[in-house]
Amino acid sequence: MRHLLIVAHGSRRQTSNDEVRDLTRQLAVRAGQRFDRVSCAFLEIAEPSIPTAVEACVAGGAQDILVLPYFLSAGRHVAEDIPEQLMPGREAYPDVRIRMLPYAGAGDGMLDLLLAIVDAGTVEH
Amino acid sequence: MRHLLIVAHGSRRQTSNDEVRDLTRQLAVRAGQRFDRVSCAFLEIAEPSIPTAVEACVAGGAQDILVLPYFLSAGRHVAEDIPEQLMPGREAYPDVRIRMLPYAGAGDGMLDLLLAIVDAGTVEH
Repeated sequence: MRHLLIVAHGSRRQTSNDEVRDLTRQLAVRAGQRFDRVSCAFLEIAEPSIPTAVEACVAGGAQDILVLPYFLSAGRHVAEDIPEQLMPGREAYPDVRIRMLPYAGAGDGMLDLLLAIVDAGTVEH
Repeated sequence: MRHLLIVAHGSRRQTSNDEVRDLTRQLAVRAGQRFDRVSCAFLEIAEPSIPTAVEACVAGGAQDILVLPYFLSAGRHVAEDIPEQLMPGREAYPDVRIRMLPYAGAGDGMLDLLLAIVDAGTVEH
């Protein structure tokens, strides 16, 4: 079983965490047959934590877990904190592949996404 | 003159801040005639700060400044901190329009961008 785990930072604003959960549900639909399950976890503040989410993936039968950092830049969170929080799962389940994908900001489509926001021209404040 | 200001969080990792600066330069090219200038600012840690960047826009002749928060979710930074840091410029230059666009994570293309990362299949760690 193949599992996609979206990892976001986590916020004190619940609406912000719910936004990640909504995105995850939409992504699960859009991903089609690519994954058996798609779920999310948070590095800080919100639940589930990364170790808890990995436990749930394994309990659900995951043999291959792809972790997609929902971050915009390759800061400390992506380079150090997420790998560190993946360690317990990697040690506890050596037969489960747990691999990180590039973070969201590394996506080729970012420039086009930003220009689409500009062109939509919806001003917030 | 119309100016696009990309506002990122700012990181202790200089490579991460440089990534935002690179993105800004690429966006300036891709944006074509939409703006007279495209620059970036950081909410915390890195330079220039938002107030400093707004000063530079105005000094450069900007009459219309569009601020694009380079953030993934509508957390406190987007909802409160960026508007707060735009206040000094709005008060000092009432004739300059300073407006916020929706943040990056609100872009319609995000699901496709994430799936493209999945499909590229480049595993980092």
